[in-house]
Amino acid sequence: MRRKEQGLEGSSTSETLRQPFQDYFAAICNLVASELDSTLPAKWAVPAHLREAMDYSLKAGGKRLRPLLVISACEALGGRREAALPVAAAIEMVHTYSLIHDDLPAMDNDDYRRGKLTNHKVFGEATAILAGDALLTHAFYSVVQASRRYDIPAERTLSIIEDLAEMSGPRGMVGGQIADMEGEQGLTDLDQLRYIHLHKTGDLIVFSLLAGGRIAGATEQQLEALRQFGTLIGLAFQVQDDILDLVGDEGKLGKKTGSDIKQQKVTYPYFIGLEASREEVKRLTEAAQKAVLEGGFQDSTRLLEIAVFLMARDH
Amino acid sequence: MRRKEQGLEGSSTSETLRQPFQDYFAAICNLVASELDSTLPAKWAVPAHLREAMDYSLKAGGKRLRPLLVISACEALGGRREAALPVAAAIEMVHTYSLIHDDLPAMDNDDYRRGKLTNHKVFGEATAILAGDALLTHAFYSVVQASRRYDIPAERTLSIIEDLAEMSGPRGMVGGQIADMEGEQGLTDLDQLRYIHLHKTGDLIVFSLLAGGRIAGATEQQLEALRQFGTLIGLAFQVQDDILDLVGDEGKLGKKTGSDIKQQKVTYPYFIGLEASREEVKRLTEAAQKAVLEGGFQDSTRLLEIAVFLMARDH
Repeated sequence: MRRKEQGLEGSSTSETLRQPFQDYFAAICNLVASELDSTLPAKWAVPAHLREAMDYSLKAGGKRLRPLLVISACEALGGRREAALPVAAAIEMVHTYSLIHDDLPAMDNDDYRRGKLTNHKVFGEATAILAGDALLTHAFYSVVQASRRYDIPAERTLSIIEDLAEMSGPRGMVGGQIADMEGEQGLTDLDQLRYIHLHKTGDLIVFSLLAGGRIAGATEQQLEALRQFGTLIGLAFQVQDDILDLVGDEGKLGKKTGSDIKQQKVTYPYFIGLEASREEVKRLTEAAQKAVLEGGFQDSTRLLEIAVFLMARDH
Repeated sequence: MRRKEQGLEGSSTSETLRQPFQDYFAAICNLVASELDSTLPAKWAVPAHLREAMDYSLKAGGKRLRPLLVISACEALGGRREAALPVAAAIEMVHTYSLIHDDLPAMDNDDYRRGKLTNHKVFGEATAILAGDALLTHAFYSVVQASRRYDIPAERTLSIIEDLAEMSGPRGMVGGQIADMEGEQGLTDLDQLRYIHLHKTGDLIVFSLLAGGRIAGATEQQLEALRQFGTLIGLAFQVQDDILDLVGDEGKLGKKTGSDIKQQKVTYPYFIGLEASREEVKRLTEAAQKAVLEGGFQDSTRLLEIAVFLMARDH
């Protein structure tokens, strides 16, 4: 399995694509960082302590995977990169808020995230709760800016907001988090684990791709292909996460490996074993690539590369 | 002062208006309750525990003041009551989420709200945090339904979403809550108290009025009048709250009076005294009524009644 993964990455074609992809990803990270820097209008009187707490977690060095998906989907359909930026920033805010709340003492009670102290360890619990609330709320403001700054039609922006609320709300990410908490009380089977993965992580990944597509004016057929692609790489991403938690490098991950086992969290390797989990990641990735290739996009290169990148990542 | 208040309420004109206003308010409460009942689409797979926690606080018997404001503003400008319902439900969700988070042990650590156990006392802290997150997120979904169900133009709905995110986010309600927390550490002067009142409570009141106006297709001048009216009654509402906390009836309030003093919270009566605070409520109310009368609305009756109702309330 490991050999096959290396084969896919190591072929001369993949190698050629790989270097530009890293540059592409780095360029997007820079753009998103600058968008996040200016996301709170300068004229707004935001209490300094709140601004600091929001910034702390926004800039704590996330992988920026979701912004990458928004922009890549937009560009795959011939859309403008800049027009996707407000939504790319929004999804990173939603992701960040969910991590801040997830780390709270009442939830996972984590002291470290990405190798840095968690928000509540630095700013206290009350401020961490409110900083999360503020990031979630401001994400919706940021999406509206796609219309305000880049003339995305209001109807299209409204659909993005509808998706964001649905996929990060009670039937989406928050629903997945509740199911995850209930799973920790020993109720989980593989179906429930899939539900958790699909919603806790998967929905924001699907949202990112749909939103990128909508910004570029995707057809229903293209949106459906993006939805399939997102569901498949989202699940692959999460199974890979389970695998890395078991066998990964603590330094690269920024958290202790084996922590899911210690916390008695059930995972893919727990249910089907490590090798079968790796096969599952590969199967999901290939199915995701197929969905993209059949989606009728202008240029599928980046989306195909992202699927490989996610499968091969070691942190 | 008390006599004058009674005079304003007790005049034959006010008395005539008062009965229908109570009926009007009751009818709106019923409509909003039914809207909140069906706000999560039946086909959505929302974990039962989460749905229960959201419902518990949504139905814990709030005053429904903000939905009343949305609908009254909409109708004052000749808009349809039904079209305002999704936004009326949304603002109640935002208000409810803010109360759930506010009551958490890390924040105000309250066991009771409106005479009932607080959300985290019934469902646990983790679920309470997530139920709040879910309500906030779903509020934005609900606003979108104004366009989906009642053909409100997308551009107008987008402005409502922009307002909601701005006024409930880091420069709005959450900013006010942070300032309030900092105030509890003894930093407050009257200016800071005004900042807290304007944002922690006032912004959602202003939002409700603007949103109602936007649904009805308000002009810029009308929106400005609604904004002024909202700012003034929002401040009056909060000063009245400070007064009631000092002298109110515990049974009606559903919380202990004098609790702000015990928690060493600074309030209007603390700074300017009880009688001057009552004068301030009256001054603000009259200025609010003036703003409405000069706003060029189709029918200002209900908005004027609301100003009186807020001033005269005893819980």
